[in-house]
Amino acid sequence: MTIRKISLIGSGRVATQLGIHFRETNKTIVQVYSRTFDAARQLARLTGAEPVDDLEKLSADTDLYLIAVVDDAIETIAKNLKTHGKPVVHTSGSVSMDVLRNSGPRYGVFYPLQTFSKTKDISFKQIPICIEGACMETEILLKELAEELSGDVRIISSGQRVLIHIAAVFANNFTNFNYMISQEILEKAGVSFDILLPLIDETTNKIHHSPPCLTQTGPAARGDDNVISKHLNMLLDQPEKRDIYQHLSQYILTHFSNQQKK
Amino acid sequence: MTIRKISLIGSGRVATQLGIHFRETNKTIVQVYSRTFDAARQLARLTGAEPVDDLEKLSADTDLYLIAVVDDAIETIAKNLKTHGKPVVHTSGSVSMDVLRNSGPRYGVFYPLQTFSKTKDISFKQIPICIEGACMETEILLKELAEELSGDVRIISSGQRVLIHIAAVFANNFTNFNYMISQEILEKAGVSFDILLPLIDETTNKIHHSPPCLTQTGPAARGDDNVISKHLNMLLDQPEKRDIYQHLSQYILTHFSNQQKK
Repeated sequence: MTIRKISLIGSGRVATQLGIHFRETNKTIVQVYSRTFDAARQLARLTGAEPVDDLEKLSADTDLYLIAVVDDAIETIAKNLKTHGKPVVHTSGSVSMDVLRNSGPRYGVFYPLQTFSKTKDISFKQIPICIEGACMETEILLKELAEELSGDVRIISSGQRVLIHIAAVFANNFTNFNYMISQEILEKAGVSFDILLPLIDETTNKIHHSPPCLTQTGPAARGDDNVISKHLNMLLDQPEKRDIYQHLSQYILTHFSNQQKK
Repeated sequence: MTIRKISLIGSGRVATQLGIHFRETNKTIVQVYSRTFDAARQLARLTGAEPVDDLEKLSADTDLYLIAVVDDAIETIAKNLKTHGKPVVHTSGSVSMDVLRNSGPRYGVFYPLQTFSKTKDISFKQIPICIEGACMETEILLKELAEELSGDVRIISSGQRVLIHIAAVFANNFTNFNYMISQEILEKAGVSFDILLPLIDETTNKIHHSPPCLTQTGPAARGDDNVISKHLNMLLDQPEKRDIYQHLSQYILTHFSNQQKK
């Protein structure tokens, strides 16, 4: 069996990007469900699908129900979704596969590890897709589907997946928050954010070649208390950033002084 | 006047990269000073210079003394350095230009904003170089020198420079620390770090096109307490990471809920 027809449940960033890219690999997007008809219609238009705003209107004529909604809504959707014996997956990093266990025999997870926008196009070829299937047959089916999108498909358990998601929160969300703080500090100095781009690019570039524990530099890693104090003084008028600076520096100091003791 | 001959004081990462790249723009590296002769000799060999381990041995036959040592050592070096009326600069992000005020009439700062390795070669063309001169003449001299290395030369005051350095600590050091934490979490899950590289690349890529305040995503930015609780539970056996996760999520939550109120 091969998946040719897909029903999308959800119309957010993940549903949009998956819908567009499935379509490019010649899948048929049968229907797009969203709670609001307008949202469904928007993505349906992009993917040549039929928009619906009622789970009852989802047709049995499909090869896969793909649930790409916010985590909190997955369980309710699963409870109300009739799968007609067809496979069903969700796309969340942190929700266990088991939430779908009452949705028929073939269920699983299809988690693309990337940060998506609705409009910014992105190549799927490099995106790791984490697959989990309730049975071997489903796992193979999902793996084949994922391999049509990406060259990096991995079988990942629910336990591993949530840890991957946590790691992604550090690597993406917390990192972006650092960039945001940087920008605000630069604004105060009357300097534009682009001055940091070559440094940020090189920071990213380095970890392609060395593990991040070997590329750590800066005042905290070398235990330079004078610079840390000077920076904390400069941040007295920005207490929130000062707190973060102090906390993170302390963690780095501890981490690297422990390492030296080893 | 143009700078043709440079004396390097220091043999670390910044001195090494500047020495190599000055040499590529046909400057003569006259001498390399380091406290240890071996360190001086190593960089001297790379740059065709004479190694010295005594400040007294630094020749007057130069156009610039360039101090690239750890922040704490700059003041002592400056006190003991005879500049023979020649210009002198340091390369630090966080040390005021004034530390050189007793080193003769022409002093300034030459701060390349990048993270350097001793061995990894890097193109200087894109690296922002922050210039500050005690007088207009010195500033012009340094600007011309910097423009031979880089296409991005900026006149930056000491007050701005330390804020830029703080912003760089967030954008580079704290970001790399996030990557390190990610790697440790993935190790626990038995998943290799490379699974995060496409996400990290896209996180970096996004801020080339949008300001980071518009690219913030993730559980904290959308106020998803359930996911945050689940992640904190998963990190119970790693209290240090759990603390950081909690702190940063709280800051993001506060930041974005304040924003929504505005």
